[in-house]
Amino acid sequence: MANNNHIVIMAGGIGSRLWPVSTPECPKQFIDVTGSGRSLIQMTVDRFLPVAPMENFWVVTGARYVQQVREQLPQIPESHILAEPEGRNTAPCIAYACRKVAKVAPSANVVVTPSDALVVDTKLFTSVIGKALEAVNGSGKIVTIGIKPTRPETGYGYICAESLEQEQVVKVSEFREKPDLETAKSYLAAGNFFWNAGIFVWNVATINAQLQKYAPQITGVMDKIEPFLFTPQEDAALREHFCECEKISIDYAVMEKSPDIYVIACEPQWSDLGTWVAVKEHIIPDADGNCVVGDARLFDCKNCIVHVPAGGQIVLQGLRDSIVALKNGRLLICQLSEDQAIKEMSKF
Amino acid sequence: MANNNHIVIMAGGIGSRLWPVSTPECPKQFIDVTGSGRSLIQMTVDRFLPVAPMENFWVVTGARYVQQVREQLPQIPESHILAEPEGRNTAPCIAYACRKVAKVAPSANVVVTPSDALVVDTKLFTSVIGKALEAVNGSGKIVTIGIKPTRPETGYGYICAESLEQEQVVKVSEFREKPDLETAKSYLAAGNFFWNAGIFVWNVATINAQLQKYAPQITGVMDKIEPFLFTPQEDAALREHFCECEKISIDYAVMEKSPDIYVIACEPQWSDLGTWVAVKEHIIPDADGNCVVGDARLFDCKNCIVHVPAGGQIVLQGLRDSIVALKNGRLLICQLSEDQAIKEMSKF
Repeated sequence: MANNNHIVIMAGGIGSRLWPVSTPECPKQFIDVTGSGRSLIQMTVDRFLPVAPMENFWVVTGARYVQQVREQLPQIPESHILAEPEGRNTAPCIAYACRKVAKVAPSANVVVTPSDALVVDTKLFTSVIGKALEAVNGSGKIVTIGIKPTRPETGYGYICAESLEQEQVVKVSEFREKPDLETAKSYLAAGNFFWNAGIFVWNVATINAQLQKYAPQITGVMDKIEPFLFTPQEDAALREHFCECEKISIDYAVMEKSPDIYVIACEPQWSDLGTWVAVKEHIIPDADGNCVVGDARLFDCKNCIVHVPAGGQIVLQGLRDSIVALKNGRLLICQLSEDQAIKEMSKF
Repeated sequence: MANNNHIVIMAGGIGSRLWPVSTPECPKQFIDVTGSGRSLIQMTVDRFLPVAPMENFWVVTGARYVQQVREQLPQIPESHILAEPEGRNTAPCIAYACRKVAKVAPSANVVVTPSDALVVDTKLFTSVIGKALEAVNGSGKIVTIGIKPTRPETGYGYICAESLEQEQVVKVSEFREKPDLETAKSYLAAGNFFWNAGIFVWNVATINAQLQKYAPQITGVMDKIEPFLFTPQEDAALREHFCECEKISIDYAVMEKSPDIYVIACEPQWSDLGTWVAVKEHIIPDADGNCVVGDARLFDCKNCIVHVPAGGQIVLQGLRDSIVALKNGRLLICQLSEDQAIKEMSKF
């Protein structure tokens, strides 16, 4: 039964707010952001190993990252590392991956997940994923994972559930865009609004049928590529046609249109590690509240996040509430309060 | 006449308070500290070119720096780049260099100078050096250059002159060690105390005779090396004997003992660039008081000194009164007020 579970890891993104540690050449998912010894994509694989064997893992990434995926995840079959010729958002990415999964495992139950988030309570997470996989097995259900909000976050989309109940499969009443602060506060108070973590569980036949129904343009492109899947011509066909796909997220393309979507809400201490402030929350601080990844000497520093190379010679003195990040000669020094501006400030 | 002037540049030091830009591998004198486009040793040569031709320049440095001297000063004859097997302070350094100068130019008038200081008013400086050279020509005088103090500096030695007169050769009454703050204030008020910039002017016969008289131990060692000067055996003789020299400064060894020392005081806007704060004073600030060498993007930063590689990607936000220095993956961030602690903090 477990062998029918497949994991599709989407690894095409660029965490530009973690500059300069995350850069287009080596984005966030390939980095040991928290100093755990494992990159985020490696931790993502670790997290799903209890539900699927390594030969059922798939990674969809940009062509330039294929080598990094191979190096970091040598146990994943090479033919399961899919290279998008260009990023067209999540709907084409998922459509392509699920066509391939369907070809080798037509009745597969699939988890689609981002590669660059952190989950602290992996035991709870595994149990929730197990329930979702059960729910979609032999059914046409689509199940998303909703994260119980811990703050009125305006940076995420929300899933509105028909019930407050956690760790149970319940009906989604609607998906909501990133809210303003007032709206986010009302969501938090209501209790049946959950963060959309971008994790989806479905039977492969379900998603392919739903794409056919709600995203026929993308399905049409995939039909052109289909005859070449797993042949030497696949890459050429992909290069020729993939860019024809509408650039659209799976949320817009399917989730917000399909009437039969479910959510399992849970609180597994999830983080998208989207900003340095978010990263800081997941590193054990020293007595002065400094969270240090790498080697640095701190003198009279308080409440800083420091991400520097291991074995480097780094001396920091007199910093307060700051971000210090150094990689390959690129340097960021910034107040924690300005971490949302890093993306703009670092556009070189 | 000008051809009888020789310039001996002492370039064996390590500016450890300018870490990480100045390091034992590439100390301060070989660095473009102020962003002028020239290293300090190159600027030192430039400053003395009006008084002596390039073939009369000599550089005494550590063996590990010979290659850097050659690269930065290709016009200096290779045989004039002298490699000390180890640093034994300035008296042995000067004794060795002046033996060599005497061998090729027995009546040379010599200027001995550090390689890592800055002089802004080079015209005044050249005029003062010219006067000193005149004063020592055919006389047994030793002339030092005294810098008129602009603050009660406790980091320098002082020269007490018998007169307040500037830009004239006057008698030294005594040399004084680095004073405490109260004493430094009284020196500043007195008007006849000048900073000892470590610049000495003498006829080569004079210094060799004075060394014989006041530093016979060092002279004895030089006598052993003398037969091998300018022969293929010189380096071996130097390696065998140089380390026997007493480790002592020329100030202690000769200046403080000899009764016939003169000073020319002047105010050529001299700086030893001994600290980042001192460096900051010699870089033109932007509208927010930031002095930047290299390429960095500053957002809401005020009164900082920034020394980073050219063409790097550096983003600095929210800094006040800070030092940021980056070189070869080594990083310093420090309050300006703590710049005296850098030497200690950066002992790796």
